[in-house]
Amino acid sequence: MTVVTANNRAYRVPAHAVVVITVDGGDPSYFYDGLERGIMPRLQRMLDEGGVFSVGASEVPSLTNPNNISIVTGVPPAIHGIPGNYCRTPEDGLVLLNDAKYLRAPSIHARFEEAGVPTLMVTTKDKLRQLLGNGGVPSVSVERAAGAGIPEYGIESVEELVGEPAPGVYDPLASHYAMRIGLSALRAAPQIRLLYVSLTDRVQHAHAPGEDVSDLFFTEFDALLGEYLDAGCTMAVTADHGMNAKHDENGEPRVHYLKDVLEAAGIPVEGVVLPITDPYVKHHGALGSFAWLHLSAEHREPARRVLSALPGVEEIWDREQAATVYELPRDRIGDLAVTASADTALGSAAADHDLTQLHGPLRSHGGRHEQPVPLILSGSVDGPLADPFEAGILRSRDIHDLVLNHVGA
Amino acid sequence: MTVVTANNRAYRVPAHAVVVITVDGGDPSYFYDGLERGIMPRLQRMLDEGGVFSVGASEVPSLTNPNNISIVTGVPPAIHGIPGNYCRTPEDGLVLLNDAKYLRAPSIHARFEEAGVPTLMVTTKDKLRQLLGNGGVPSVSVERAAGAGIPEYGIESVEELVGEPAPGVYDPLASHYAMRIGLSALRAAPQIRLLYVSLTDRVQHAHAPGEDVSDLFFTEFDALLGEYLDAGCTMAVTADHGMNAKHDENGEPRVHYLKDVLEAAGIPVEGVVLPITDPYVKHHGALGSFAWLHLSAEHREPARRVLSALPGVEEIWDREQAATVYELPRDRIGDLAVTASADTALGSAAADHDLTQLHGPLRSHGGRHEQPVPLILSGSVDGPLADPFEAGILRSRDIHDLVLNHVGA
Ligand SMILES: [Zn+2]
Ligand SMILES: [Zn+2]
Repeated sequence: MTVVTANNRAYRVPAHAVVVITVDGGDPSYFYDGLERGIMPRLQRMLDEGGVFSVGASEVPSLTNPNNISIVTGVPPAIHGIPGNYCRTPEDGLVLLNDAKYLRAPSIHARFEEAGVPTLMVTTKDKLRQLLGNGGVPSVSVERAAGAGIPEYGIESVEELVGEPAPGVYDPLASHYAMRIGLSALRAAPQIRLLYVSLTDRVQHAHAPGEDVSDLFFTEFDALLGEYLDAGCTMAVTADHGMNAKHDENGEPRVHYLKDVLEAAGIPVEGVVLPITDPYVKHHGALGSFAWLHLSAEHREPARRVLSALPGVEEIWDREQAATVYELPRDRIGDLAVTASADTALGSAAADHDLTQLHGPLRSHGGRHEQPVPLILSGSVDGPLADPFEAGILRSRDIHDLVLNHVGA
Repeated sequence: MTVVTANNRAYRVPAHAVVVITVDGGDPSYFYDGLERGIMPRLQRMLDEGGVFSVGASEVPSLTNPNNISIVTGVPPAIHGIPGNYCRTPEDGLVLLNDAKYLRAPSIHARFEEAGVPTLMVTTKDKLRQLLGNGGVPSVSVERAAGAGIPEYGIESVEELVGEPAPGVYDPLASHYAMRIGLSALRAAPQIRLLYVSLTDRVQHAHAPGEDVSDLFFTEFDALLGEYLDAGCTMAVTADHGMNAKHDENGEPRVHYLKDVLEAAGIPVEGVVLPITDPYVKHHGALGSFAWLHLSAEHREPARRVLSALPGVEEIWDREQAATVYELPRDRIGDLAVTASADTALGSAAADHDLTQLHGPLRSHGGRHEQPVPLILSGSVDGPLADPFEAGILRSRDIHDLVLNHVGA
């Protein structure tokens, strides 16, 4: 049996296609609800026939980029270098972490490619494709599907391959197009052994479990999951982070604007960095439940005291402790790290957030309360990971170890 | 090279004595302060001569029993079964978790013994010895040293071995007597390959870094560390948890009494379980920064709302999420888990806590803010754990893996 090592973990090279799907914002509650109401019959059948469903922990801040990179590298942000969608770096100042130059660890897929094992990355948003395609991994996004091919597999046109034009990245079915690209690519290039498909959380940011659009999303997801299973793939499904409503009974966002709060208390703030920030702010107005504060040394304790008195502010850590507790790279985080409760978001200055762009009452993520994510496999877990899987204590970054090394055939 | 496996991790059997010392309540701040002021010359020399100092994360709740067991088993409470010093179990109701029958995983030491490799456990308090001695591991405590021997090594009298009578368990130097027992036992039984010495946190509960009694504790600790190094031992030092002041400027404990708070809000409480509770409550009056609440289902959301409005209350989790986020056994925790900030403690009903027993202003632990602990080794770390060690993201439960498998000779 061939084994490939990435970041000090060994992964078996499978003899057939293994597929990991990350449902962006795929909070466990969507799956519990969908299974209970019977709108996910293929997932239900998979579980009835030996598949398994548990939960695990994603990285905090519970955001798209850190978690997608943790999932494909098998290591935490302290090692792979991506602690947010956005951060302040010593070298470049404030940056969107979409550039592969910020990566400090290779993906499992890059190591497979080096070993001559065919892989493919499919994303919905192109920003993520740039990170995931690092290390010579064939990659394609829904956002840039028009006119694109996958030359590594002799595919000239992605849209022809799928048989229909790609939807816009804000279409509720954009994620499903990513799943279709993966499925079509596997049919056209059966030599692919490891496929990663990353969806987008536009629907989850706007719709709670049980709403019509959510049901459409998960019904379609389920049908496509069924197609992968019918094609003989071994399947793993997880999420990059959960999702919670962060508004009051009237639908108004429940937000603390930290820069405003601190300045009103006479504390000067160098910067409030909201690591949820991305080029697609319409989803969430850059409001999530995690913030980094950059403050000069003498203002940190006073800031801590002011912020800890705010209802809904949970953890406050200094840089060193945050690095240890959240497993983050010390040089890319703030002097203080602040998290909020499930129903509370953190902003910078009220004037900087354009909430008119929100599609409805604020739903978002970023904090501890969006850390639990589903871990779903098409076969049972055997060996040393069986007990921790059952106990719900594995990490989403263990999903490739699970599906490549520990799932019964 | 012989290797012994415990809980799915392989450990090399060393050719000479390897010693792990857990400084109970040994917050990193004591070590930073002691090194800075030059009161720990042997530790300083060890670091100058190739030893390494980093931090890592202990288990939450950050308490003595869960963490000592994690350190000696290499797995989290979800696997070893001990989520607190005290908890409510389905089988026996409220219990002190001092009985080995509650253990669900063997220690590394028990596996070494099975493989014929000589080991020894030395504790200060006898409650911990009962847990650590599980699986036929030779064990001795300072508390019961009078009249005791270590028959496995032909030692008839521990007090004769050490050459002086054992101090009381509340003596500031009780911990050092544990270190002396280990040192004397290694001299009398040089076949011992793995020694674990667990101290007590009486001093840390009463004295901040830099106070005279703390200085006495760490000066003596340092001298004994030097004796171990002179004896040729490979050394590892960690802590079971940190320690923080939880009182206001006037020295009054800063406490929320959760049962009182909830009942005043009209919410009936089945039980508030404070997992710091132990037979030695004088240290902390059973007040730490972690609580489990047992509540009927309809009262959980109202309780969450009431508690989250309290200043200093940080995380609130339901049972399933707490199990995932803290890696705890679901069946031995509460319906809600509540943590408090570094400077705040959680109690049950004010009438149940006898604060007249406290030895001074409240210093305690149990929450997230006592999660960071030191990881100190007498040699440098090589191989796959080098980067995570340096990044400060390993767990204290990795210390035996570090010292047995990854420390340069
Ligand atoms: Zn996301
Ligand atoms: Zn302790």
